[in-house]
Order: sequence, then C-alpha cells, then structure tokens
Amino acid sequence: MSSLPEHDGDTRRACDWTVDRLRRIGMTVEIADLPGGRHPVISAEWLGRPGKPTLAIYGHYDVQPPDPLEEWVTPPFQPTVRDGRVYARGACDNKGQVLAGINAAEHAFATGGPPLNLRFLIEGEEEITGTSLPRFLRQNAGRIQSDFVLIADGEFTAPGLPNLLTGLRGLLYTEIVAEGAAADLHSGIFGGVAPNPLNTLAHVISALKGRDGRVTIPGFYDAVVPPTEEEVAGWDRVKDEPTLKRLMAVRALEGEEGFSPADRTWGRPTLDVHGIIGGFIGEGSKTVIPARARAKVSMRLVPAQDPKRIFASLATYLEALETPGVKLSLVQLGAAPPVLAGVDHPGVSAARKAFLKSFGAEPVLVREGGSVPVTLDFQEALDPMLMLTGFGLPDDALHSPNEKMDLEQYHLGTEMVLHLMEELGFGG
Amino acid sequence: MSSLPEHDGDTRRACDWTVDRLRRIGMTVEIADLPGGRHPVISAEWLGRPGKPTLAIYGHYDVQPPDPLEEWVTPPFQPTVRDGRVYARGACDNKGQVLAGINAAEHAFATGGPPLNLRFLIEGEEEITGTSLPRFLRQNAGRIQSDFVLIADGEFTAPGLPNLLTGLRGLLYTEIVAEGAAADLHSGIFGGVAPNPLNTLAHVISALKGRDGRVTIPGFYDAVVPPTEEEVAGWDRVKDEPTLKRLMAVRALEGEEGFSPADRTWGRPTLDVHGIIGGFIGEGSKTVIPARARAKVSMRLVPAQDPKRIFASLATYLEALETPGVKLSLVQLGAAPPVLAGVDHPGVSAARKAFLKSFGAEPVLVREGGSVPVTLDFQEALDPMLMLTGFGLPDDALHSPNEKMDLEQYHLGTEMVLHLMEELGFGG
Repeated sequence: MSSLPEHDGDTRRACDWTVDRLRRIGMTVEIADLPGGRHPVISAEWLGRPGKPTLAIYGHYDVQPPDPLEEWVTPPFQPTVRDGRVYARGACDNKGQVLAGINAAEHAFATGGPPLNLRFLIEGEEEITGTSLPRFLRQNAGRIQSDFVLIADGEFTAPGLPNLLTGLRGLLYTEIVAEGAAADLHSGIFGGVAPNPLNTLAHVISALKGRDGRVTIPGFYDAVVPPTEEEVAGWDRVKDEPTLKRLMAVRALEGEEGFSPADRTWGRPTLDVHGIIGGFIGEGSKTVIPARARAKVSMRLVPAQDPKRIFASLATYLEALETPGVKLSLVQLGAAPPVLAGVDHPGVSAARKAFLKSFGAEPVLVREGGSVPVTLDFQEALDPMLMLTGFGLPDDALHSPNEKMDLEQYHLGTEMVLHLMEELGFGG
Repeated sequence: MSSLPEHDGDTRRACDWTVDRLRRIGMTVEIADLPGGRHPVISAEWLGRPGKPTLAIYGHYDVQPPDPLEEWVTPPFQPTVRDGRVYARGACDNKGQVLAGINAAEHAFATGGPPLNLRFLIEGEEEITGTSLPRFLRQNAGRIQSDFVLIADGEFTAPGLPNLLTGLRGLLYTEIVAEGAAADLHSGIFGGVAPNPLNTLAHVISALKGRDGRVTIPGFYDAVVPPTEEEVAGWDRVKDEPTLKRLMAVRALEGEEGFSPADRTWGRPTLDVHGIIGGFIGEGSKTVIPARARAKVSMRLVPAQDPKRIFASLATYLEALETPGVKLSLVQLGAAPPVLAGVDHPGVSAARKAFLKSFGAEPVLVREGGSVPVTLDFQEALDPMLMLTGFGLPDDALHSPNEKMDLEQYHLGTEMVLHLMEELGFGG
C-alpha cells in the first residue's frame, strides 16, 4: 500500500522484515533513503565469488491497496492457505516471487555458498512508479555493476507454460496542437470560410495511420528490427485472434495488414489517438467552430525505433499536413525507448534450462506491448543481460481481492532461481 | 430581459405599453398567453380593406439583459438622446424598429387609413427562442393568413446601404456515435489490434469533407439551387476575403474551392465538426483506447436541400465508412430547413422601391449563413412572401452596453414602412 500515506508504517515493516531476512541469510544490506522518495531501496550484496559473474535479483516489497475489503474470503493481511494456495495481498505481486529468490539464496548459502556473486535490489515504490530505484541505480551504477538482472514480477502464460519476455515496446506520447482563428466562431456566420482546427485534426489523425493500419510518418518503420524466427515461433500459440476478440468483445480486430495479432501487439509499432480536446462536448448542440484544438496521440515503438527521431519526423510531417488557415505544432508529453531483452544471451539460455529443470517446461518467448519502466532503468544504469519472467499464474488476481500464490509455483520458482544461479555460476 | 424571471414584470410592462399603443392607433388587439410560454404574443389586426392584401409586421418587445451595467454611459432603461441617437437597451433590438412599423401605421390611420390590411405579430420571447410565437402561428394559421410578412430586426450592411435578406441557410446537427470494444482498453496491451473509435471518427470526419472543402456525402449537392446572378451581384462588395480574414484573425480562409467567400458562407452548404467526445482529455498522458466516442457534426444547408434526405444519405454513407471493429450510428440533434425568401416576388420589389424612396438607396441583396428561427415559423405556418430587413446600423451595439438607434434611421425606417404599405396596397 505504498500509495496510502496512512499505511507508510506497514510498508516500512515489510521493508524491515525483508532487510532482516536478507541479513540473516548472509547478505550485506544497505537501506537507501533517496531524496524525494517515499520508501527506501534495499540494496543487498554478497560478492564472495571473485571472477564469477554477478546476478542481481529485483523485487518490490510494496503492494496495492486491498480494496474492496468485503470481497476477500480471508483478510488480505492474514495470509491463509487453502487448497495449496496462500491468499494475501502481495502473495504473488511481488512478495512470493521475491521470497523465491531469497529462499534460493538461503539454500545456496546453506549448501556451500552461492556459485556466483549475488545482489538484491528490492524497492518499495513499484506500485506508485516512484523515483527512488531509478535514482539509486543512476547514482550507484559504478559500484553495483551486475552482469545479469532477474526480474520475476509476472505470470506464466498458462498453467505449466512459463515465459521469458524478450522485448517491450516503447512509447512516444504527444499532443498535436491546432490553431485557427483568434477566437471561437459561429458556424452560422463563418461556416464555409472558417478554418476549423477540429476538422484539420481529423485530417491529420486520419493521415497519420491509414485504414490499412500503416503509420505514414516518413521513416517511421526504418529502424524496426523484426523479431527472430525463434522468438516468433510460439507467439501465435499464446496470442491468437479468437482470444483477443473475446477479451475485447469486438467483432473484428484492427491493425496493420499482413501481420499476425501477436506481431501487431508485440513486434510492430502502432499509433493511437487517446482524446481530442476543443469545441463543444456537452449535451445537445452548439454550432461553435473552436479557435484551437488538441489531440493526444501516442505511438508504441519497437526496437530499434528512437523516440527522438520519430518525434522530429512527426513534427516535420505535420507542416505538410497543415490546412491553409490552421497552424499545427507538436508537444512531447512522454517518451520511453523500446527494450530488447534479447533471445540469444547467456542469461536467456540459463533461464530456459533452469525452467526446464524446475518446472519441467521450456518457457515460451514472448514480448509485452507496453513498457515496464524498471527494465529501462536497469538497462540505462547497468546495461545488464535481462531475464524478465514470473512465477505467478494467470488467475492469481494481482491488484484484486483474493490475490493468491500457488505454493507449488512458489516452491518450483525457488528451485528455478537455484538452477539459474548454478547455470550462470558454473556455466551450465 | 425575457431571460430573467425577476424582470418578468418589466417585460410585461413593455407588452402592455405596446398593446395600448396598438389599440390607440386603431388596431384590434389580442394578447395570447400560450401554454408553457413565458411572455404573451401580441396579435393585432385591422382588416378594413377587403380585397387588398394583408401585411403582417413582426417584432419583439423583449430585450437582452443590460450587463455589464458599469459600461453604460447613461442608464440602459432611461432612454437618452445624444448626438441624434437614442441610447437604451432595446433601442435598436427591437423596439425602435417595431415602433417604426407602428408609427407608420399610425400615420396611415391618420391620413385616410392604411391602403391594405394590417397585422402586427409582436412576441416577448425572441431573446430566449421561446415557443409561444411558433405555437400561436401554428394554432391560428387559418385566421391570421397574411400575404406579406415584414421582419425588421436587423442592420444595414453599412451606413447608407440597406439590405434585403433573400435566403438563410438551414442546419442539420448530428452526433456520430462510434463503438468499439466493450470497455476502455490499454494501448500497451491492445494497441495494434484494438479498434479505436477515435481513430475511426477521425477517418470519418476526414472523409466527410475533403481538403478541397467539398462534402462527400452522396447526393449532398443534388438539390442545391445556385443563387441568381441578380442576387450575387452585390455579394463580393459586402463580404470580401480581406475583411473576413481580419474578422477571424486567420492567415487564410478555408472552404470549398471555386467559390467566393460570400458564396461559401451564404450560398453553399458546408460541414463542420464542433466537438469530439471520448477518451482522455485531462492534462498529461493516459494511454487509453476508448470503447466509445462521439462527434458532433453539423451541416449548413442551402435551398433546396432537405435535412431529412441529407440525414438519410449520411446514415447510409456511414455504413461504408465503418472500420472492421467499429460500429457507427447517427443521431439527429436538430434540423432546420433552409429559407429562400426569394428575390423576385412583389414583396421584394416593393421593399426595394420603399427603401429607394425613404433612404434614397437601393438595398443590396444578401443572405445569412445561419438560420433565424422566426422566419421558418412564419414560412411553415403562413407561407407568406417574406421581407427580411432592418433599420439598424452596424455600430448599434445590439446585446452590448450603450445600445443605440440613430434617430434618422428610425424616422427614415418609419417612412420606409409607409412607402412599403403604399407599394403593396396600391401596387406601386
């Protein structure tokens, strides 16, 4: 409940508990309070294997608020086991998964010591997208270098089917501003000669993405790196058209012609308008021609598109899309580059083997259509080999009442991390 | 101040004063309180010339509120003469112009009686677009038949340059509804396959009117009757591009290619979007793909376009503009057919001669780009020959502080109505 100041004490107790646990298993722990932060970053290390690589395990000790309380079968903060599952807020997101890592480390310490250097970086502001961890990573990049970063904060694709995230789309969020007359006009008087910024914006948005789903910004697709065949192999199995249609309750999917639904949400960039501001939006009718209008337009970007280049190209393109009486300009509201976690680095090979040894299943390689800020923070600060995965199940009810973690997933997850350490430490 | 209930007594006093005046000059007066109405309709008649045509003179006794009071040089409800002008709320809009008609009738009664049958229809709900007059006209159409209706509630085009309105554009106001998924979606997860009703609406609006200003609804222009050469003759003189650019403060006009600015605002139909509802319009960025969006789209119609036919054609056209996952539907929010007051009926000829005899100037034939509801009400109920004009001047400050009426305009306006009666009664 990192978002609720009245529960800051509880969040701090989760922090202290984690720190204590890490110290008891043999880690050297530092609690970093960052300026402007709400909850400290736990940075723990054990560098007892000089010459061996360093594995950093990420996690977060904060949780979502438990509302609505009345829907919980047992109280959210009294963990209860039923049918081999532990029910509690944070059971899966992310305490159970963090503990799998800590338990694995404990086991390693108890049986001759971990086969590689270990680091834990556990934050308390994941649910509020806080600034403490990014700041900590930037400020301490030199002394916390890590070869591998394991982020286990997700779910299996299906029971028995683990996954590894190989890429995340980036985002460029803009506002297109259209300016016409000096003041709002009445269409009864000026309709026919008045520049209408809303009509111009409609032309612009319509021009930016054709009915074939293809974005028309010059150079938009130039830097796109297609996913590898190995990566794409399992995509259609886990993300198919009937399922997507059912999930969204639509009669047909839309999007770029010639690409599969999985490719369109994970491998291809796209463009959407999220809102159009200006004119009259009340009930009934008003014949105003607004002086000014704005459209919120974002682009999901894929490796190796550069938000800066796309922004510049769009800004130039808009000049060509102006109508005689309407001036267009472009404002950037946000940008996150795409992440390519990769499919062919030693971390991915090790994780695949570790999943096979623990869960008895080869993970499917998938991507995400949205950004996960923490991956970008790690990439920018440490440039590590990333392993993005999770031990939860699709029905774990993250952020919802009756959140749970299957104890078998929890135990096998612990084994997976142990195997991962071995694969990375001994080279498999 | 028909809009302010606390001044209903004052508005009623204006009504009573007018009734008294009409009775004193010799008219038979009826005060009609209509169900649901705020202020009664004054209906006065004198039918002493059997076999002669009947002229109805329209006017309104209600006025706009006087705010801001502190900007008035002299109090708004203490009429004050300065430099040959009377300053007061309602001086021009519409009391001075109504009085010109009543004074003309009084003069006619004092000098042998009017040369034709006379009727006054004076309402108290013009400034609030009330329902009393339309209802009165509908309910009494049979017994208040009139050959001619004079509506003098406007202004000269310029000092010394009277005008006659020969046409008013109509309006079809619609809402286009676009429906995609069952609920709002996150573009990080579904962007690339999700139908986006806002994007579809942009396509639709862009398709409805090309960048050449041409509306693409099938059959949209079929019924358009071009204005006559006689009508167009003076248009460019009174409505030119530099003036319009200055008025709107734009670098360029927009609109239909191949037509003059006057034609585009008076003679040609057009289409504008007034607001687009749906998605995120707050500050900052939110990557929502809305489940539903709506666009307020209106069309200004010209003679002899039929709002019903255009609506049906647009509804059909929208089916072709749907995208695979977005359903479109059309709602009508308002419709007013265009008005063609005409340039070649005896009322116009008489009014032209009357202006020449009184003001010494031939009126320019102009149109309006918006609808004036009262003209439609008269057309539908009585189907008379309409004479739409006004005796005010462009700087009369209607609806603003220091509203005034030039006494010379007032006196010459009275003369104009007298000459009009003669022209219509004696056939010129």
